[in-house]
Amino acid sequence: MIILGVDPGLQVSGFGIIKQEHHKTWLLDCGYLKMSSQKPISERVAILHDFFSKKIIQWSVSELALETPFLGKNAQNFLKLGYVRGILYLLAHHHGLGLHEFAPREIKQSVTGFGAAPKDQVARVVLQLFPKLPIQDKYDVTDAIAITLCGLWHAEHNRVGLGR
Amino acid sequence: MIILGVDPGLQVSGFGIIKQEHHKTWLLDCGYLKMSSQKPISERVAILHDFFSKKIIQWSVSELALETPFLGKNAQNFLKLGYVRGILYLLAHHHGLGLHEFAPREIKQSVTGFGAAPKDQVARVVLQLFPKLPIQDKYDVTDAIAITLCGLWHAEHNRVGLGR
Repeated sequence: MIILGVDPGLQVSGFGIIKQEHHKTWLLDCGYLKMSSQKPISERVAILHDFFSKKIIQWSVSELALETPFLGKNAQNFLKLGYVRGILYLLAHHHGLGLHEFAPREIKQSVTGFGAAPKDQVARVVLQLFPKLPIQDKYDVTDAIAITLCGLWHAEHNRVGLGR
Repeated sequence: MIILGVDPGLQVSGFGIIKQEHHKTWLLDCGYLKMSSQKPISERVAILHDFFSKKIIQWSVSELALETPFLGKNAQNFLKLGYVRGILYLLAHHHGLGLHEFAPREIKQSVTGFGAAPKDQVARVVLQLFPKLPIQDKYDVTDAIAITLCGLWHAEHNRVGLGR
């Protein structure tokens, strides 16, 4: 199983790609896509589509994990998050990916054991699991890896459950 | 100039396609795409992508007109509208379409002369311009045609302005 987790945004989208095989876990790729807010939205949406389309093909991704969004103070940002998520849904369908979505609380709970964990606590756990992660801009990446891990454990659990 | 106007939604998306040539206006196509809410969102998003991609190619569409969304009572619907708009932005970029966006008030104002016009008043004007429109489910279609007309007049105006 190869799972892509994305913490999406129209300015920065963090991602992680993790492979699980014979009870071993590899972090294949991680990082973030940064797009200038000077570019028109239609262009940013297309850049994001092409970026993740290539990642899915390059790593033979089979599953996609996302965080369920919540409406913050800024409704326009919520709408923009919708643009990005719409593109990821499209990619999931076109590439036949299994889709796994989790509330922010659920992700923090599975990674740190504490549903209201702050970002740096999530980052610490992720860095313990993958110590070779580059430190700069870590929250964009560690948050995305936490989503990926949550998706991985959830998908694994379901698979075992189905197998028995 | 051939313009596609869409009144998007994850359940029903109305659309109109209008051609303007030598001061004549043709309604090339109109209707709506209805999708069952039983289908997963990733599938609906893909159906919508393929539907409008085909329409754009079939009619050699050069411009896309959309209504700017406003946050209603239901934040989840606002997010879903984001999914659909994200897909339309992607299509606009991939097919090199000019993008025209208008506030609901602006559309009603240009079509009926009254920014707070109700849907049936918009429909009456649209049906006067295009009397052969099928009447059933008309608001989904007439709203979309109003968006298309607004885009057409706006684009024409800009073109004339640039030409002189």
